[in-house]
Parts: sequence; C-alpha cells; structure tokens
Amino acid sequence: MFVSAIAFVEGTPKVQQIVEAFSQAIESGEWAPGSKLPSVRELTLTLGVSKFTLNEALDRLRGRHLLTSSQGRGYFVAMDCPRPASVTWVDLLPQDLLSVLRRPLVTAGGELRPGGGHLPEDWLNGEAIRQAMRSVVRAPSLRIAGLGTPAGLLPLRQALQQKLHGEGLSVPVEQIITTPNTVQGLDMLMRLLARPGDTVLLDAPCYFNFHANLALHGVKVITIERRPDGFDFNALEHLLAEHRPSLYLTTSVLHNPTGHSFSPSQAFRLLQLTQQYHCHIVEDDLYGDLHPNPPPRLAAVAGLDQVTYLSGFSKILSANTRVSYVVAAPQLAANLTNMKLMSGGVTSELFEQIVYRMLSEGSYAKHRKRMVQRLMEAGGRVEQWLKRCGCELPMAYEGGMFIWARLPPGVNGELLAQEALKRSMVLAPGALFGYDPAHRDSMRFNVAHSDEPRVQRVFEALLLRGVAQSTPPAGT
Amino acid sequence: MFVSAIAFVEGTPKVQQIVEAFSQAIESGEWAPGSKLPSVRELTLTLGVSKFTLNEALDRLRGRHLLTSSQGRGYFVAMDCPRPASVTWVDLLPQDLLSVLRRPLVTAGGELRPGGGHLPEDWLNGEAIRQAMRSVVRAPSLRIAGLGTPAGLLPLRQALQQKLHGEGLSVPVEQIITTPNTVQGLDMLMRLLARPGDTVLLDAPCYFNFHANLALHGVKVITIERRPDGFDFNALEHLLAEHRPSLYLTTSVLHNPTGHSFSPSQAFRLLQLTQQYHCHIVEDDLYGDLHPNPPPRLAAVAGLDQVTYLSGFSKILSANTRVSYVVAAPQLAANLTNMKLMSGGVTSELFEQIVYRMLSEGSYAKHRKRMVQRLMEAGGRVEQWLKRCGCELPMAYEGGMFIWARLPPGVNGELLAQEALKRSMVLAPGALFGYDPAHRDSMRFNVAHSDEPRVQRVFEALLLRGVAQSTPPAGT
Repeated sequence: MFVSAIAFVEGTPKVQQIVEAFSQAIESGEWAPGSKLPSVRELTLTLGVSKFTLNEALDRLRGRHLLTSSQGRGYFVAMDCPRPASVTWVDLLPQDLLSVLRRPLVTAGGELRPGGGHLPEDWLNGEAIRQAMRSVVRAPSLRIAGLGTPAGLLPLRQALQQKLHGEGLSVPVEQIITTPNTVQGLDMLMRLLARPGDTVLLDAPCYFNFHANLALHGVKVITIERRPDGFDFNALEHLLAEHRPSLYLTTSVLHNPTGHSFSPSQAFRLLQLTQQYHCHIVEDDLYGDLHPNPPPRLAAVAGLDQVTYLSGFSKILSANTRVSYVVAAPQLAANLTNMKLMSGGVTSELFEQIVYRMLSEGSYAKHRKRMVQRLMEAGGRVEQWLKRCGCELPMAYEGGMFIWARLPPGVNGELLAQEALKRSMVLAPGALFGYDPAHRDSMRFNVAHSDEPRVQRVFEALLLRGVAQSTPPAGT
Repeated sequence: MFVSAIAFVEGTPKVQQIVEAFSQAIESGEWAPGSKLPSVRELTLTLGVSKFTLNEALDRLRGRHLLTSSQGRGYFVAMDCPRPASVTWVDLLPQDLLSVLRRPLVTAGGELRPGGGHLPEDWLNGEAIRQAMRSVVRAPSLRIAGLGTPAGLLPLRQALQQKLHGEGLSVPVEQIITTPNTVQGLDMLMRLLARPGDTVLLDAPCYFNFHANLALHGVKVITIERRPDGFDFNALEHLLAEHRPSLYLTTSVLHNPTGHSFSPSQAFRLLQLTQQYHCHIVEDDLYGDLHPNPPPRLAAVAGLDQVTYLSGFSKILSANTRVSYVVAAPQLAANLTNMKLMSGGVTSELFEQIVYRMLSEGSYAKHRKRMVQRLMEAGGRVEQWLKRCGCELPMAYEGGMFIWARLPPGVNGELLAQEALKRSMVLAPGALFGYDPAHRDSMRFNVAHSDEPRVQRVFEALLLRGVAQSTPPAGT
C-alpha cells in the first residue's frame, strides 16, 4: 500500500479532500482490502497536514466502513469493500502500485511533472485560446440551444480538410467527423470496428489508455516491440500470420512513449504486411503536429480503406478544448456519426467554434511553429542531461514531447517514481506503458517539464541517494 | 426456436424489417447458433408475407453470414456470428423512415420545431450563459492544460451536493460524478451495470435514444406502458416475475415524451415491486427542474443502492454547455470515474466552471424559476389548442416541455411528420418513441415551440388538407 501526496485545492476543507482521495484509492481497488495504512505520523508528513485534520478524515472514512482500526495496531482498509465492477481496469494493472503511479498522470496532481503527458501551462498559448473564446462568446453565430451538427461543425471540418490536404491526405468533408476527444474517438471506432473475441495488435510500449480502452471491448490484445528500426518485421509477419489480428492500433508519428516515427520505408513494409493479412490500421496522430518535419502518415500513404485516422488538439492547444476528429471511409464515417448520437459522444459546438477560429485565423499555425522549435531546443538539452545521468536513449530524438530513456543499471523505475511522488514529482516509469518486463528499466520523459533545474535536481538526488536500488516494501 | 410475428411499420420495406428482426434475434443470441429455422412455408404464414419477400430477406441474411442454408435441409443460424449490436443498428438507420424523422429532432434542422426536444433559443438565458463564459475565460482559475479532475470539478460537485440536498437526496460529494452529457452518463452506467444478454425494462413510450443506446450493450429490451396512473401494476409485476429484468431505465419526473410524473404512491409501489424482484432502477431526471412542484425523486425515496440517479443541464441552460452528473452508490461512483478515463467520457473543466458559476451565483435558480412559469402558461394554451384540433390528451399537463396528444381518428402521425418536414416543420410522431403500435396514433408536442401562431397554422392546415389520411408513397 502506498499513499501519495495530495495536491490540495483551495476553498475546500482538507479533511474532505483527504476523505475523497482515500475513498477513491480504496473504492478503485488501489489499496487492497485488509492492507495496513502507514502510521498516523507518516501520513501527517506525507500529506503535510496536522494530526487533528488527519484523524478527523480517518474517522469519517471509518464511518463509511472504508477503514477499520484496531487499538494500537493502526488503520486497515476494510475487508468487505468489493472490487470494482469495471475490474477490467483494475485487472489490467500488473499491480496496484501502477494505478497509484498512473493517477497523477491523468490528474492535476504533482508539482513537478517530468512524467506528464501534456505541455506546461506556460507553454500553451493561453492568451490566444482565451481570445478565441472571447470572440466566440461575442459572436452571434454561437448557438446556445441545440446539439450542433452530428458530424461536427461544417466550417471546422472544412478547415480540417484543408489542413489534411496539406499533409497529403485529401478527403471529402463528409469523411471528417469530429469527436470530443481522441480516446472517445478511439472508443467509438472500436465499438464499430472491433467485435468481442477479435485480436488487436498494439505497440509495446504504448499509451496505457489503449490497453485500458480495449479491455472495454472484450478483444484479445497482442503486442509487438516498437523499435528504432520500426519492428522486427519477421516477428511482425509471424504475429500477423499466427494471430490474425483484425486491427492494429498505433501512434505513427512521435509515438507515445518512445518518440519514434515510422520512416517511409518502415511505413511501406508495415502497410504491405498488414494489407496482406487483412489487418486494418487505426492510426493515432495526436503528436504529429509537434514534429518539425513529419513523415507521411499511414492514412495518406495507404488510403482510408486500410487505415482509419485519428487526431486532435489536446496536446497543442489545450486538453480542456475538447475537439478531436476521425477521418474514415464513407460508411464508417456515417456509422461514427450515428454512434455519436447513440452513445452521447457528441461534440460541443462551442469548442468547435474555438478551434475553428484558431485554425482559420492562423494562431494555431503560429503557436504550433513556436512549440516545435521550443521542443527541439528543450529536447536537445534534456537528451544531454539524461545521458549525463547515466541513461541510455535507444531512439534518436527527432522532436516532440517525449524521450524514452533506459535508466542506469539496477535502477527500479517504479520505486523511483514512488519516491518522486513523495517529493510531489510525477514520473512515468516504463511499466505504465505495457506489461513487457523489457520496459521496466525505462522511463518516459516530457522534455518541456524535464528542462527545469528543479526537476533535474530532484531526479539526480533520487538517483544518487540510490533509493531506487532498494527492494520494494512487501505488500505494495 | 420461436419465430414471432413482426409488427410491420408502414413506409419501410417489409424485407428490411424482416432482416432487422431476424438479425436482432440472431445477434442477441435469442436464436442459438446452428439452430434450424422453420420451413419457408411456416415462416410466410407466421409473418404474413409472400414467399418472394421472405426469400429476399433470407438471401440478405445469408449475405450477412447470419444464416446458412443447405440444399433441401432449409435455413440454419450461422455457427459463428459475433454480436456487433452497434453495427447492425447503424447499418439499419440510413434507409429507416424513423431515422429520417428522428434526425431533425437531434439536429438544428427545421424552422418550426413543435416536435423539438429543446427550448427555443430565445427562451434560454443566453446572456447569463455568455456572462458566465466571459468570467470563466477571465478567471485565473481556468486551467488551460491538464484534464481536470476525473470525478469532476470539486466546487461544482459541492454545489450539486447542496442542490440535491434541497431535493431530499443527501449524499457525500464522492458519490456525485460529472459526465459530459446525460446520454453518455447513461452509456457509461450501462457499461458498468448491464451485461450482454441482460434484460432491461423501459417505459413505452420513452426517449428514443434509450432504445438506441441499449442496442449498443447487447441487452434484451422489454417495455411497459407508462400511464396516467403510472402502470398497470399487475402487468408490471408479471413482467418482473417472468423476465427478471436486471435494470429499469426510466424518466421519473416530466417523463419524455408523455410528461407524466410518478406520484408518491405510484413511486412507492414501483419501488416495492422492483426491490422485490431485484431490479435496479436508473432514474433519468433531466426534466425535473422544469416541474413547478416536483414530487420526490425515486433515488431520494429508495436510496442509491436501489436507484442510480442521472441529471444534467442541457434542457434548462444549453445543450452546448455539456455538464451532466450521476449520483451513485460509492463503488459505482468510483467505477464510473475510472470509466470516464478509459472511455474518454471525461468532462471539460471549462463547462464545469461555467455551470458552477451559474449555480453558485444564483442565475441558474432565477432562470429556472422563469422557465417553469413560462412553460406553465404556454402549456395551458397549447393544451387548449390541441383539444380544438381534435386531439385527446391522456395525461393532465402538470408543467414542463412536453404534451403527449392522441391525434384525431385516422390521422397517421408518420405521414403527417413527413409532410410537415416539407414545410420545414419538425414533428415528433409517437412511432419515434417505441415500437409499440399503440403509440402510432399519438404525437409529442413541445409547448414552447407549439405556442406560436405560425406553427399552429401550418399544423392545422396539414390536418385539414387531410394529407395524413393518404396512403404512404411506395418505397419511402
């Protein structure tokens, strides 16, 4: 059992925030039933709260029957709090520890975020976004009533059509469908493309939510190692021949977490093989716009009968400006539009208007250009720093947000991340990105967040103090 | 295997309706893989169709690999047919007359919208919403980066906690989870609560998207007639005893489309029976805030172990301000939070901030009060008008957006709606709200949109010109 620091919100009693965080951890199964909480003293230190505050929170949790306490022996997670019905999610985790490490990655928790999946607030062009919001709010074209257009706001889809054309993917606007975010776009596509029992191929390592989402669709998942040279293509052909996956879900350019992009020749061999074995590709292109000189996308090379394309703006504009989009073959695009209505995956015209303005008025292009440049510079520095730390970098850095580093020999990434959380630093150990032990000695670094002296000092201190070599405490 | 007669819908080719019905029976597992169909002769008698029609349908089912046939031995259910509920559903929609009528209801199409499901733009307090947006955009508290809090913005959930407390539903904030909209909240709940093959009970008639969404979850749907006195409670008990539905999904207050609200005594009998037969209730309360004096909600009466509660703001604030919420037992609330992350059903902190402001600064309460009053007045007038038109109103109008009216004898609602669309008027014929022929003579009227001379003139003209009595043009 591991208790992480809480990023307390102003204006809410800390007691309540502790109760919420602990309830979450218990009810989500992060803290195993029966496991013992750290001592009150340790907890007050970890959370930075008074003994009084902590005890009040613990009492309330006892009142909810989430905790039990026995005189002198401390507090325990109640035995009879059932595992979540969505065990899929919980069962996916090699161990509870991983969900503890994952949570801060998907929440605002953590002060230093070298493991984070987004750009820092001060890198984003908040002013341009606020400006776009202001003009949208002013505009009479903003319809307050109504659900907007099922396929997505037409002017936005036309702007996307132009953007895609510039990237070598020319499609009728009818085949461009907006979705609220990329995970939901993927989720709706899987509902249309994957049938329970199908086999789906993933990269190892890959974005952890790919595993989590596929678990919802009752498909069998197989993985192939993503390497600097793409794959071991013989291994790929063997997998395709033996398991006959109906889908391959991948991030083609600036792959999360490795930063790898398929070269044209790698893409060609991949497309040849998947076509030969009737394996449809779902191409996630969430990071491509961060590449200084992106290689052709798979969809642009092979067309939409073989590749369905997904992208969005959460990484470059804002995770809170929820507009992503899917580019698909005509029938699939029509089905996706119906799926949006049936599953509530409709997009907000307000956000569509905001993104439309930023695309059509050029502020997106300007901002993107700045991001690409700034990332290249930070990436170069972080590469050097990681090497000085004794890390090996299997992939040459070619831009974007992520560097995938092999930690110095003997360093345990999960323990390192665990210790880092106590210093409210969020790391992304390799184990989060797949179950292949081969990733456990690696770690994903966000170059924007890692290019900070404070981050580097804390990380170096952790390495030096050798905490990571220590063996994990039993029962985590 | 049992093949039941099909209640054929006018205006849709019988071949297609047979294919639809058989596909459902096969894909839902109702007809076991490998089982033999009755002879062609028996089938033509059961269905009352020509041998030609039947054979065409059987050919199309063979084309979909749902049926196999072997010379002289007849037709068999294919051995290996997965259950892509979504695919069949979406494949059917395009040619389906009902979807033609449904589409304008969920889009901005149509100039006159007496059938619409939303309030008119000029009824909504656009200025208050824009004002809230402006202050949110100004506020430093708006985080551009990051995904927000998985369970939902805490201050908003605290404001909802207060609101619910005022409605007799007192819950810890941990059990209030925001969702982007109510359909998606329902969709995520169904993924957690319903298993393929489960039986789910719906009202007849009910919101058409309930049927559409449940089709995604591979559940068997049964219905019970919603009546002024609630139900025929003997029929309800019989259904519960015979089909053992695991869930009952209903709109308890100002039911869409009938406008009916469960009285306390009706609610009591309903809760008694469903509890006795272990049928969990999912209570949709999207309209309750439009009731001048809403009766207690089911969740408030029976508690969250028996009832899971769903509500939102799309009807009173704006369909474009996407914040709904689920109130659930602790475990389910925790699982729903994970489901939000896994399926991309995360909410936008921007919208959460907007709704939080309107709730906490009182503009929501003021606006709601105005809406309730204005609807009561319009509703009274529209009631009178509909009676003058020769409609019967089974339910007494008690407020809200909808009046359910039985059309004058002989009037065909679907044809009326088809003709109305040609005059860019959107009607909502009863057939949209369920497959029960009993609804086909009825129609849902939005009192806000129907309280307009132009709407009334066009509708009366259609009735007078008797278009609705004419037989349907072939092949629509």
